[in-house]
Parts: sequence; C-alpha cells; structure tokens
Amino acid sequence: MTHHTHFMQLALEQAAQALFLSSPNPRVGCVIVDSAGHVIGQGFTQQAGGPHAEVMALRDATAKGNDVQGATAYVTLEPCSHHGRTGPCCDALIAAGIGKVVGALTDPNPQVAGRGFARLRAAGVKVEIGPGAAQSRELNIGFFSRMIRGTPWVRMKAASSLDGATALHNGASQWITSPQARADGHAWRARACAILTGIGTVLEDNPRLNVRDIATPRQPRIAVVDSKLDIPLDAHVLKAPSGCLIYSCSANQSKIDALQALGATVIHAPNTHGKVDLAAMLRDLAQRGTNELHVEAGFKLNGSLLREALVDELLLYQAPKLLGAGAMGIANIGPLDTLDQAVALELHDVQRMGPDLRIIARIQNRAAF
Amino acid sequence: MTHHTHFMQLALEQAAQALFLSSPNPRVGCVIVDSAGHVIGQGFTQQAGGPHAEVMALRDATAKGNDVQGATAYVTLEPCSHHGRTGPCCDALIAAGIGKVVGALTDPNPQVAGRGFARLRAAGVKVEIGPGAAQSRELNIGFFSRMIRGTPWVRMKAASSLDGATALHNGASQWITSPQARADGHAWRARACAILTGIGTVLEDNPRLNVRDIATPRQPRIAVVDSKLDIPLDAHVLKAPSGCLIYSCSANQSKIDALQALGATVIHAPNTHGKVDLAAMLRDLAQRGTNELHVEAGFKLNGSLLREALVDELLLYQAPKLLGAGAMGIANIGPLDTLDQAVALELHDVQRMGPDLRIIARIQNRAAF
Repeated sequence: MTHHTHFMQLALEQAAQALFLSSPNPRVGCVIVDSAGHVIGQGFTQQAGGPHAEVMALRDATAKGNDVQGATAYVTLEPCSHHGRTGPCCDALIAAGIGKVVGALTDPNPQVAGRGFARLRAAGVKVEIGPGAAQSRELNIGFFSRMIRGTPWVRMKAASSLDGATALHNGASQWITSPQARADGHAWRARACAILTGIGTVLEDNPRLNVRDIATPRQPRIAVVDSKLDIPLDAHVLKAPSGCLIYSCSANQSKIDALQALGATVIHAPNTHGKVDLAAMLRDLAQRGTNELHVEAGFKLNGSLLREALVDELLLYQAPKLLGAGAMGIANIGPLDTLDQAVALELHDVQRMGPDLRIIARIQNRAAF
Repeated sequence: MTHHTHFMQLALEQAAQALFLSSPNPRVGCVIVDSAGHVIGQGFTQQAGGPHAEVMALRDATAKGNDVQGATAYVTLEPCSHHGRTGPCCDALIAAGIGKVVGALTDPNPQVAGRGFARLRAAGVKVEIGPGAAQSRELNIGFFSRMIRGTPWVRMKAASSLDGATALHNGASQWITSPQARADGHAWRARACAILTGIGTVLEDNPRLNVRDIATPRQPRIAVVDSKLDIPLDAHVLKAPSGCLIYSCSANQSKIDALQALGATVIHAPNTHGKVDLAAMLRDLAQRGTNELHVEAGFKLNGSLLREALVDELLLYQAPKLLGAGAMGIANIGPLDTLDQAVALELHDVQRMGPDLRIIARIQNRAAF
C-alpha cells in the first residue's frame, strides 16, 4: 500500500463517520499529514450548515497545536469552491498554508465540478486526484445520482422468506426476519435522506418509518405516494420530525389544508393516468435534497417502481424459511411470458445477518451514471 | 495448529478426494507419518469393492520404499474390523506394524462401532480418537444418516429467482440460473448415491439427471416417484447406467414387466392414501445403499417431501432476478395461516456461483442425529 493509498483510506474512514450525519451534503473525510508522514489533523463533514471535512481537519490540527504549513491534505471529494451555507473549503485550505491536496475525485456538483481543484492550483497548492475514487463515489452514490441524474439513488428494501414471501395470505408478516436483520434495516433508514412508502402500507400498518434500534443524529424525511389523499390525519408518518411529503393527484383542498396544517407538504404530481407520476416525484425529491431514497413499501408500489425502471438497488433480507404458496410476494410484476422479461439484477453484496441473509443486488448497469 | 490437527487435516483432504468415488462406502482418508514427522504414505477409499483408505496409504508407503514400522496412521474414520468386500483395515494396519492410530471418529456402522479401535488396542497399537471429528462427519453426513437413522441424507435442490420463482406460469425455466450454478449442481449430483425425481418432471422435461459438465468415476442411480406407473418406456431416466428405481402403487403387471425388461426396478410402496409412501421409500433407498439422496423434483413432490418432514437440506441456487407474480414456486406447501407454520431452516453455507447465489440451508436440528 502506498502512502497515498494509506492516508486516503484514513480519510475514507473519516468520511464513513458522516454516514448518518451530513445529508444532503456528501460524506467527506479529510486527513492532514505533515512532511514526516504524521497525521496532524482529521475530520469529516458535519450536519448540513455545519463545517465540512477540510475545516474540521484544520480545526483539529489547530486544537492539537500542530502546524499545517506545507502539509498535505487528503480529501475524499474535491474541496468546494462556492459559498453555500459555509465558506469555500478551498479558501480555508489556502489560507492555512496547505502545500498539497490529494483528492479522491472531482465533485459532481455543477457549482464545483473542477473549480475547487483549479482554485487550489491557482493559489500554488499542488493537486493530485485519484486514489480512493471508487470507494468515495460508492459512499456517496446517492449524492452522485442526485447531481448527475437529477434523481435520488433508489434503494428498495424488502424482507422475505427464501421462497420470496413477504407476508402470508392473511397479511401476517411480523416478523419474518430476525432482530439482527431489522436492526440492520434501521441503519439503512438512517443513512437515507428520505423514506418512501405507499398509502397501502400507511393504511394497513400505520408505520412510523423512523430510525430506532440504532443511534442517529437525524431522522430521514418521509414521503408517501397517496393518489387520492386517503392518508388519515392521525397517521404516524405525519409526525415525522423531518417532515412528511405527500405526492398526490387529489384536488381535495380541505384535506390538503388539513394536512398542511399538520406540517405536511402536499405535492400535486399526477401523470396522465390519474396516478402519481413516480418519475416526476423522484425528480422533485432530488430537488428537495434527497440523495438516497429508501423504499419501504408494499407489493403494489414496489411493482410500479420496478415496472417503471425507477429502482436502482434491492436491499433484501431473506429469512431461512419456506412459506410456500398463496403468500404475498415482493412486488407486483408479472406474470411474465419469457425469462428475458425478468427484472435483471447483479449481486453487489451478500452477508449473513444473524440467522438471516442480506442480499444487496443492483439493477444491471444502474450504477454506471 | 498441533501436529495432530495438521496431519488429520491432510487425511481429510485425502478423504475429500473420495467424494464422487467411494459411495456407498464412506469418504475416508489416511495419512501415515513416521517418527520424524514426515508423511510416508497416503490414500483414500476407492470405488466400492476396491481398497479402503488405510490399505491405499500402506500401499503408497510401500511403493515409495518407506518403512511404516512404528509409524502413526491418521484416519478420518475408525478402521473397519469386519470382512466386507475387502479384508478388515485393522488387520492390515496391525500386520504392517503401525504403532499408533489417530482416528477422527468412531464408525457408526453397527458392524464396526468401536470394534475397530478395540481390535487395534488389543494388538498393542496405541489409539487416539477425536481430531477432525466434525469435518469427517460432515463429509460423510449421508453415510452417518444411513447408519444411524436408516434413511439417506435428503438434499433438495432448487433453482429460483430472488423472489422464489422456479418457472414462469407457462413453464419456462431454462435457464433461470447461470452455467456456473448449473455446473455446481452437477457436482452435487455426482456426490449423491441416488437422484430422486417425480413423474411430473419426467413427463414434462424427460431429464437425464446424469452427471455432465464435470468428470466423475460413477453415475448415481435414479429414483422416480410414479404412483400410477405413468413413466414412458422411452424415458431417458430408464437408461441410467447405475439403474432406475421406480416407486409405485400400481399393480399393472404388464407395465411392471416392460419396465423390468428395460432393467428398471419397480418397487411397490403404497401408503394408505394410494400414494407412494415416501418415508418407506427413503428406508428402502437406505437399504439399497443410498447415503445422500439428491432431490431434483418439481413443485408437487418437493411439497410432499417437505410436508412430511423428510427433507434435511435445501440446496438453493438463486439468480439475481425478479420474476414476480404468477410464477411457479419451489414447493407445494401452504397457504399457511401463521408464520410459525413455516418450514424453518438455518443457513449452513452461502456462496456466490458466478452471477448467482448458492444457499445451503438445513431444516432446523436435522443434522443432530
């Protein structure tokens, strides 16, 4: 392992600490290394509006009494060059006298997109780009998706038996998978910017869809597909601390008023068939700063999203059980007439979760944007 | 790793080479080590009727000009003490002047069952039992099952999508899984003593159910559940080189005669409902020397075996696809009314096979015999 690879790895470990925190900003880590090869400062991007990784690392060095003059900063994403809610990180690095910046990859944000590295070079800071690029992009796949495609990275979560049943014919589904699998599911909720569900799930289960089981500094937003505004005013999701977005086709103004009075945002998003335009909804969610959209929905909405090719990744917990015929499946697709009509995925990660299996599979070629 | 563990590991590697070969005898390996800690001979059990591991290892030592006087023999199963098709291995070890035998575990065969170790001790050979016991038993789980339970180890193979579909509504199923998964499936056929299928599969697919894709010194027997003797006389399985067993309830003597004229064995095995008595069939298969029974059947027979709790292990290949509603499932069980009626398994081994996943799951507590 070269020095570069080693220090970038440390910076990526810093970045990973922003997993539940920095949304909608990317997860970025920074490690400052002096000429003797000692780490003299490190940090990661804080909650939106708070300092970015570079500033945290510079502050850390100062707090420890370390001199950063001429030091090298390893950053997992190009330092920003624009004034957002915080000042440009480039300026902070230049002002501190950093001699060299090693960046994992260029920021896809059109407000940055190479300007950060250019600004550093113009100020006489050496710049090297490349190590850790794949890992940094993977950690920020939702941010890259939003910046490049204008839509969130859509991750559909499901829990089933080995034979694909998510619930029995009578609706019984608690609990198919183990406490370990469910706790892991909360970690995936925690990293998402928003959680999407359908009105069917709200009416049947009245879920909270919040992060429990694990510590998190923020709760994701909730989004509900509810064409006819059937959502009850006492639905748990309406009390989500980060707010509830309701995508609807209804013109029922009194219901809209009542929901808005409860703090919800109602978005009129019909398609030509009188249903919610799911593709438009994704674009709207991206505009509202959604990097990763975590879908916890039922058979119908899962099916619609898959049929419209709007899903990027399947997060599937499989319990080692067989539930047999007559049970409810993952998604309302099919019946298919030929095997090549299948939703084609590729395995991305397979791990055991207690007694269960966690399979992350991506729609083929979906990560290549 | 102690010396014992190391040499027993080598003996287990020898034993593994008998995987496709020694049936219905157990897979046994032997490594002979001199007092200086050098391996001076090794071998594994050959095809039924051929020499056992101990004799192969002694012959190997002789062929290499090595003196086995006072050496230690590591054997993955207790040496046999009875005259079968070959002479007792105990006598061969004693006659060769082996000083010590380290055995992984006692042979469950009632004709041996400790007598081998006792005979060695009586002849002044030191005996130690224990290292490698779990691995040796696992490698011979079918032999242990047949000896202890009087039934084969029943491994049900299925290939499905991630959502549990084994075929489309119109029967299309070639190929859900990849060439890598199918080749692996042939390796599991190769290690089985017999392959079981149902008349439905014979009539629909007319499969050969032989081992292709990989090299094997022997072909497993075929067994067919065919209550009414509907099997066509030109069915491929009737040409299986190791023979075809047909379990039936039919008294159609002309069909029985015709099948027997083709070399098949027809076994009358009705239960009180006029169907084949599957439990009795398993006992019969064990009496015919079946250690591992590999089931490649359809929805109906899979369901009957599972409902009658006759399955030990599921060998499931999952392709990363979703095939959705209306497709055919793995087994005719359900509809269930409560989740605790599920067929409860535990993950035993999970591996990727090319683009697919191979899940080996065991019925809970089934391996504890």
